[in-house]
Amino acid sequence: MPTGPALLTDRYELTMVAAALADGTADRDCVFEVFARRLPHGRRYGVVAGTGRLLEALPHVRFGDEELAALRDQGLDDARLLDWLADFRFGGDVCGYAEGELFFPGSPVLTVRAPFAEGVLLETLVLSVLNHDSAIASAAARMVAAACERPCIEMGSRRTHEQAAVAAARAAHLVGFVSTSNLEAGRRYGVPTTGTSAHAFTLLHDDEKAAFAAQVEALGVGTTLLVDTYDVVQGIRNAVEVAGPGLGAIRLDSGDLPTLATAARRQLDELGATSTRVIVTSDLDEFAISGLMAAPVDGYGVGTSLVTGSGAPTAGMVYKLVERDGVPVAKRSEGKNSVGGRKTALRRHDADGTATAEVVSSAEVEPREGDRPLVVDLVRGGEVVAPASPPEALAAAAAHHRRVREALPAEAWALSRGEPVLETVTA
Amino acid sequence: MPTGPALLTDRYELTMVAAALADGTADRDCVFEVFARRLPHGRRYGVVAGTGRLLEALPHVRFGDEELAALRDQGLDDARLLDWLADFRFGGDVCGYAEGELFFPGSPVLTVRAPFAEGVLLETLVLSVLNHDSAIASAAARMVAAACERPCIEMGSRRTHEQAAVAAARAAHLVGFVSTSNLEAGRRYGVPTTGTSAHAFTLLHDDEKAAFAAQVEALGVGTTLLVDTYDVVQGIRNAVEVAGPGLGAIRLDSGDLPTLATAARRQLDELGATSTRVIVTSDLDEFAISGLMAAPVDGYGVGTSLVTGSGAPTAGMVYKLVERDGVPVAKRSEGKNSVGGRKTALRRHDADGTATAEVVSSAEVEPREGDRPLVVDLVRGGEVVAPASPPEALAAAAAHHRRVREALPAEAWALSRGEPVLETVTA
Repeated sequence: MPTGPALLTDRYELTMVAAALADGTADRDCVFEVFARRLPHGRRYGVVAGTGRLLEALPHVRFGDEELAALRDQGLDDARLLDWLADFRFGGDVCGYAEGELFFPGSPVLTVRAPFAEGVLLETLVLSVLNHDSAIASAAARMVAAACERPCIEMGSRRTHEQAAVAAARAAHLVGFVSTSNLEAGRRYGVPTTGTSAHAFTLLHDDEKAAFAAQVEALGVGTTLLVDTYDVVQGIRNAVEVAGPGLGAIRLDSGDLPTLATAARRQLDELGATSTRVIVTSDLDEFAISGLMAAPVDGYGVGTSLVTGSGAPTAGMVYKLVERDGVPVAKRSEGKNSVGGRKTALRRHDADGTATAEVVSSAEVEPREGDRPLVVDLVRGGEVVAPASPPEALAAAAAHHRRVREALPAEAWALSRGEPVLETVTA
Repeated sequence: MPTGPALLTDRYELTMVAAALADGTADRDCVFEVFARRLPHGRRYGVVAGTGRLLEALPHVRFGDEELAALRDQGLDDARLLDWLADFRFGGDVCGYAEGELFFPGSPVLTVRAPFAEGVLLETLVLSVLNHDSAIASAAARMVAAACERPCIEMGSRRTHEQAAVAAARAAHLVGFVSTSNLEAGRRYGVPTTGTSAHAFTLLHDDEKAAFAAQVEALGVGTTLLVDTYDVVQGIRNAVEVAGPGLGAIRLDSGDLPTLATAARRQLDELGATSTRVIVTSDLDEFAISGLMAAPVDGYGVGTSLVTGSGAPTAGMVYKLVERDGVPVAKRSEGKNSVGGRKTALRRHDADGTATAEVVSSAEVEPREGDRPLVVDLVRGGEVVAPASPPEALAAAAAHHRRVREALPAEAWALSRGEPVLETVTA
């Protein structure tokens, strides 16, 4: 059974390759560009994510006997196409924004230069990975900002496709979520994993104290006890009675969280559990997190809204042919407003180091003081530049993200709908 | 590298198993139930999907050396837990709604009966699969209904995670989408795949006619030509000139589709291409499809809104412990409104065969005339009942869905927000 990514694509990529091979246009030198026309829902910025996953997958886009047999079964039996696919190995160049970088409307997030057939073959996979991961990272970054320095924990695996869950945990960690519930994200990407227990564990036991005692016995007093299965006040009393005042944390998963968290904090302090943290986890999104800023909360567990992009589950990036044999090309409807041809980009900053504009140009731009080039080489002649293990690539992206977000003007952190915080200007 | 589903889960499932093994509660006889508290966005019905994928995955939930090493690396090093996992093989019973069945708030979509540790271990995977696939199927069913008899084509792969795309194509076909762009969905599940070309193919060529000629040469005159890269009127003229009046279809991917489709139809007829179909594909959802009902459109290609569940990207199903050692259990907040313990369900119909109610009961209900039991055995003693190949399982689910949706009252097809079309009653 093929497990590689070659068939994770749209049929029309292959019919285009077949037709281009037949009429001799397959080798035309092409430049494809990935960009988003707009940011969803009046967001102020987007976060590029998925680049590392894409570079992991790229060398595995190969058509072996099983892939070719599957294509024949589906009526894709053109001999020239199948021969070409059997020999396929991406040999082009890819450059783009470093993973973790911010993006704005029109930012040239990824640029693929290759013969037409090689470049078009990557379209669907590139977009699937970048659109999904960037959507999650862009939503997660708003949650991290809303939480200020308080830790966010990713726990949304059950609300999305089982493999998307792994990518979502990765994207969340990239922008600052401290940990995930997803064990495969721990294995594959080195994301720290956390987890203690659910209501079912309390219901399994004869009473709440028995459940708490079993958990503390297995996980130590530093664990997090879920106190809202029956009655929160009694639950907190039971928790401290069983674990002692050294209990790590309690978790509240229902009810009016600001009120409950405030009461829980007071009760914990009265019981001497002054260092026991209060973790909240009920249907949080960036707005609910922001609404808890004045409450004595020590951490947020986020599920559904994270893995669904908090209302924007896909980043809306497109993969467009922008240059053929050195000549800019565009659909008529796009010709007027967009910069033709292959582009480069830099971010302009004022003297204080605050970002002021996203400069996108089809010509080389002479950098001014405070300009930071945004486009880096990712693949050269089919070879990944600076290959890194998946955990290393994620750590590098997370570090890059931390650096670049610091330069954003303060308006970037507004949760309300508005304009992108940086204007994309052409130069 | 582990490729099985065992680690596609939340860490707390394993910490609960560890604690329950330690205190002797791991073997308690438990019943877990999957249900949705509500339908999203005022939808009238939901569609159960993913069951077949879950039954495919279940036998592969095993912890081999690599999985166990990954757990140890993440600090899950309790010897009793690891020994138990090494021997793990689900041995319990699963029953539930047949895939393709409709569901309503409180419908017991899936019921797992097993010792606590075995049942809790499946939670995350069960929910990931059912929540994702049911969300897509539920949205897709509304699109199919809005399209009446006109064919819908799934083409959203690029707007979702690359593996979620395969599941989405499967879920869409289950409810009546005729085909998908996704080649892996064709291979894995036998979903018919279709696809012809993108704007890039036209832009690759020196002019539109050259592109059309290459496509017709490769794919035959029955192909679909994309006519809106430059000018639609000229595009249609070029298409018919190149392919002749036997051209299979044209595709419109931008602009005001009702106007464009009407003009295109008239122009095609004037050119003698009276049997050439008009396919539209620009950001369609169920509302846009409905808005095109009066336009001369022959097929809809749906992307983003399909793979993102048209505003409801997850089905909101939960996996709750409802019975332990034969005794109903529930969180306090749920105790009042829900039926305790394990449940069964049937759909009530009037004398005309129209569904009138979803009857959910914790006791056996004596079926009346017109009642149809909804819960079927899926897994018995760890063995999948009536195992089927993935394509067979999908075909059976699609056939079941076609049958059961015919019994819904006409109000089910309203796209506006409202109440579930069947009330869930307890008996």
